[in-house]
Amino acid sequence: MLKINPAFVEKILTSFIQQELSKFQFKKAILGLSGGLDSSVCAFLATKALSADNVISLIMPYGQTFNQDVADAQEVAQILGIKSHIIDISPMIDSYYSKHPTPHKKLKGNKMARERMAILYDFSAREKALILGTSNKTELLLGYGTIHGDMASGINPLGDLYKSQIRQLAVHIGVPEKIRQKTPTAGLWHGQTDEGELGITYEKADQILFLLVDERKSKEEVMAVGFKRKEVEKIIDLIKKSEFKRKLPPIPKLSFRTVGHDFLYPYDRDK
Amino acid sequence: MLKINPAFVEKILTSFIQQELSKFQFKKAILGLSGGLDSSVCAFLATKALSADNVISLIMPYGQTFNQDVADAQEVAQILGIKSHIIDISPMIDSYYSKHPTPHKKLKGNKMARERMAILYDFSAREKALILGTSNKTELLLGYGTIHGDMASGINPLGDLYKSQIRQLAVHIGVPEKIRQKTPTAGLWHGQTDEGELGITYEKADQILFLLVDERKSKEEVMAVGFKRKEVEKIIDLIKKSEFKRKLPPIPKLSFRTVGHDFLYPYDRDK
Repeated sequence: MLKINPAFVEKILTSFIQQELSKFQFKKAILGLSGGLDSSVCAFLATKALSADNVISLIMPYGQTFNQDVADAQEVAQILGIKSHIIDISPMIDSYYSKHPTPHKKLKGNKMARERMAILYDFSAREKALILGTSNKTELLLGYGTIHGDMASGINPLGDLYKSQIRQLAVHIGVPEKIRQKTPTAGLWHGQTDEGELGITYEKADQILFLLVDERKSKEEVMAVGFKRKEVEKIIDLIKKSEFKRKLPPIPKLSFRTVGHDFLYPYDRDK
Repeated sequence: MLKINPAFVEKILTSFIQQELSKFQFKKAILGLSGGLDSSVCAFLATKALSADNVISLIMPYGQTFNQDVADAQEVAQILGIKSHIIDISPMIDSYYSKHPTPHKKLKGNKMARERMAILYDFSAREKALILGTSNKTELLLGYGTIHGDMASGINPLGDLYKSQIRQLAVHIGVPEKIRQKTPTAGLWHGQTDEGELGITYEKADQILFLLVDERKSKEEVMAVGFKRKEVEKIIDLIKKSEFKRKLPPIPKLSFRTVGHDFLYPYDRDK
């Protein structure tokens, strides 16, 4: 049920990237490369859409942790012939946590994601390059991402593809097998894996999400397909709890036209 | 035309803060205090809504610049009896720009706003406190704010009030005159003033915005009220150019239900 036509999807996504850049009057795109699947797929798409000269990648490790991911990210940049800058985020992160230590690695992980966002926006302005997001539909629906961190971008080409669909696209557009075979991880600490943290495999999560969200099936209907009550309830719970990450901050309505309520479109009269 | 009933607005906004906190199951709120008008008004409202014990303020100067603003922010916290922490952002900012220097103070200003955001979210998680945004309607419509910086928050109580309406509310809820009389500034560098950067006074900008947005008047109709063509066109241009700051990143639609397009509500069947 999650099967895609990868050639068709590639065509839609590359023309989306081209059109959005031209709408915002950008010639270049910039993205963070983690060495993982999603950002690699996004880099491949961007290069196809814009040519290598117009794609810039930032590799932003925390110190010497995850050296293999840095090497993988560099390899992707090299295969594509796109520019890459390596920026170590540890000085900024450490200068904060040395004064405000915490035992909670999730806090630090979120701050790292927001540091990378801030650096991407800084380079975006320097290079006049639009930021490509790399959040997929699975992550967006489950809230598995940092708001104002990796969830922030100018445009988000992969946002309507489940993780298992991105795998299919990755094969088609030639992402190296080594990267396709890696265990998905947010890379915020050692031993972290997406599936470990979510408590469910992507294969299962994607199928349950597809049934609930795309097919609008009820919990009972999804269970009838063969999924456990516990699994389905977990997915529903994650969707609910992460609603705030998919919205702009609520504003109490006082006037006739309020940002985010009924002032929702560009002001395009009087051209 | 921008006159408000401050007692009524106060009632709406304090109950908004109470309701949103209870919806998200928070007891406490947290906000950044700059020593300026908007964050002071927001702190006053939050204290009225939640009592002083449940409001935390962060004062986040860049080194020793703007010592007067720090003192003013501390005074607001003291008057209200709310907790305040002073966190110097210069170590984090300097460790980045020492390696990536730029002559563009706007870049650095944006990174400072994003550093403050990341610290607010870090403290929000530590303290289990919901982040109150302090963006007003004038700023939101003109795009005078940093996306994923000061524009980021959990809820944004002042988002439907123009700057001149916040001034009226400030008098009513007892914000000290000293703070009400200060020249509005984003405080990102010395000599920066909102009105200088925008190239128009808040008084004029608010009136033009009100006519264009709330009253849906055309450019010609606004000019007929007595505003110069140049002024009205500038406002229209700023609204248009900042559209992206009031939206989530666009996602190309591939499926029947896409985040931000037609999956817009919490998943609340099967309660």
